[in-house]
Amino acid sequence: MRWKMTIEYDGLPFVGWQRQKNGKTIQEVIEASIFAFSKEVVTLYGAGRTDSGVHALGQTAHFDLNRNFSPTSVRDAINFHLRPWPIVILNVEQVHCDFHARIDATARHYKYRILNRRAPPTIDFGRVWHIPRRLNVEEMADAASALIGKHDFTSFRAAACQAKSPVKTLTDLRISKVEDEIHIEAYARSFLHHQVRNIVGTLKLVGEGKWDRTDILSALAAKDRSAAGPTAPATGLYLMAVIY
Amino acid sequence: MRWKMTIEYDGLPFVGWQRQKNGKTIQEVIEASIFAFSKEVVTLYGAGRTDSGVHALGQTAHFDLNRNFSPTSVRDAINFHLRPWPIVILNVEQVHCDFHARIDATARHYKYRILNRRAPPTIDFGRVWHIPRRLNVEEMADAASALIGKHDFTSFRAAACQAKSPVKTLTDLRISKVEDEIHIEAYARSFLHHQVRNIVGTLKLVGEGKWDRTDILSALAAKDRSAAGPTAPATGLYLMAVIY
Repeated sequence: MRWKMTIEYDGLPFVGWQRQKNGKTIQEVIEASIFAFSKEVVTLYGAGRTDSGVHALGQTAHFDLNRNFSPTSVRDAINFHLRPWPIVILNVEQVHCDFHARIDATARHYKYRILNRRAPPTIDFGRVWHIPRRLNVEEMADAASALIGKHDFTSFRAAACQAKSPVKTLTDLRISKVEDEIHIEAYARSFLHHQVRNIVGTLKLVGEGKWDRTDILSALAAKDRSAAGPTAPATGLYLMAVIY
Repeated sequence: MRWKMTIEYDGLPFVGWQRQKNGKTIQEVIEASIFAFSKEVVTLYGAGRTDSGVHALGQTAHFDLNRNFSPTSVRDAINFHLRPWPIVILNVEQVHCDFHARIDATARHYKYRILNRRAPPTIDFGRVWHIPRRLNVEEMADAASALIGKHDFTSFRAAACQAKSPVKTLTDLRISKVEDEIHIEAYARSFLHHQVRNIVGTLKLVGEGKWDRTDILSALAAKDRSAAGPTAPATGLYLMAVIY
C-alpha cells in the first residue's frame, strides 16, 4: 500500500527535511513515528527538501506499508507518536503504487513573510523576516514581475543545488501587503535550491531603493550567483502546498 | 509629560499584565525597561488587565516622565531594553496630562482563535485553542447573536471579578471561519473578568450540538456562573485594540 500524506511543521527546531547526521530532521522524526505504530521501517519521500528553519503548511510525502490500515488510523497514530515535535499529519490517503511525491508534483507554492515595521516580532518570532526599514512594496511588485516566466535562474541558485538544469519556469510571483507584513508568493513546477530565498533577498534591495527592475533583469542575465542579492533567512519561508 | 503606548506581546511566558508576586508580569517588565532608559520610576496604567497566557496585538497603557524625549526615541529605547522578552512597543505618543488608558477607553476589541481540526497546532502552538471535533459555526453564530446588547453578564463573570456592576453592553460578537480556524470577535466598552473566555467556552457547547440558542438565553437569565459553560483557555485570546 502506498500512502500520500500532507504535513505541517514548524521548521525552527530542525536541521531541515532530509535525513542527515548533524541534527534532527523532519524526515527521520516522521519515519520513526510511522515505525512506532506500524513496526515497519519505511523511507519517506518528500515533495520538497525544505532547509533548516523553513516551515511547511502543506508539505507532501509518500511511503509504503505492507499491512493495511484505515486512513484516519494512520493519520492519528502517526500524530500520536510525533508528539511533542511540532510536526503534524493533516491528511493521509491511499494512492496508486507508482505515485511519487517529488516527481509527480505539477506545482509548488511557497510563501515568504516579511515583518516590515520598526518593532521586532513577539508572537511571530521565528516565523517572519524582520526588516525595520520601510520597504516600497509597489517597486518590489514591479521588479518581481520581471522574474516571472521561463529563465535560467543561475543567479538565484545555491552553490549546493543538485538540479540538472538552472532553467525553471516561475509561473507566478505575487507581492502583497497584509497589515505590517509583506507576503511574497512564488509558484512553479519546481524550484532550484534557495531560489525563493535568493529572490526575496534580491527584492529587498529593490524595496530599499538600492535596486530597480533593470538591476533585477541584469542580475538574471548575468547567470552568476554573485550578481544577485543575498539569501533571505529561512525563518520567513513556508512551503504552502504541492499540487499533483 | 504623559505618554500613551500601544503594546504587542506573547502572553505565554507571563503570569498576566498586572504586577504580582508569583511570577513575571508584562507591566513590571515594561516599567523596568522604561526605568532602564529614563532612570525614572514609573507606574504603567494598562487599558486591560490581561490574564496569564493572554496575548495582545494592541494593548494600550499610559505613564508619566519628567524629562522630555522624542516619541521615536522613547519607543526605540524601551524596545531595546525589553529584549529578549516577547513584548514590543508598536507606537508611543504624547497625550494630555488627564488622559487615562483604562478609564478613557470607549471600546475594546478581543479576538479568540479556535483551531478546529483533528491535528494539533505546530506553528500556532500556544496561540490557539485546539478543538479536534468539528464545531457547527452557523449554530455558534446564531447563539452568539443572543448575547449582543446590554445584559447582566453574571453567568459569564469570574468569581474574582472586581467590576462594580455585572451589567455590560456587548456591542458586537462575530463568529467567522478562517480556513481551519474559528474566530470569535467581541466588542464592548469594557468587559467583566473572564467574560470573553466564558462566552467562548459556552459557545463551544453550542458548536458541539450539546446546547442551542435557547440554552444560551437561559444561562444569561440565570445570573449564575454555574449556569454557563466552562472558561476557554487563555492561549486563544488576543486583546486586539483599545479605542479612545
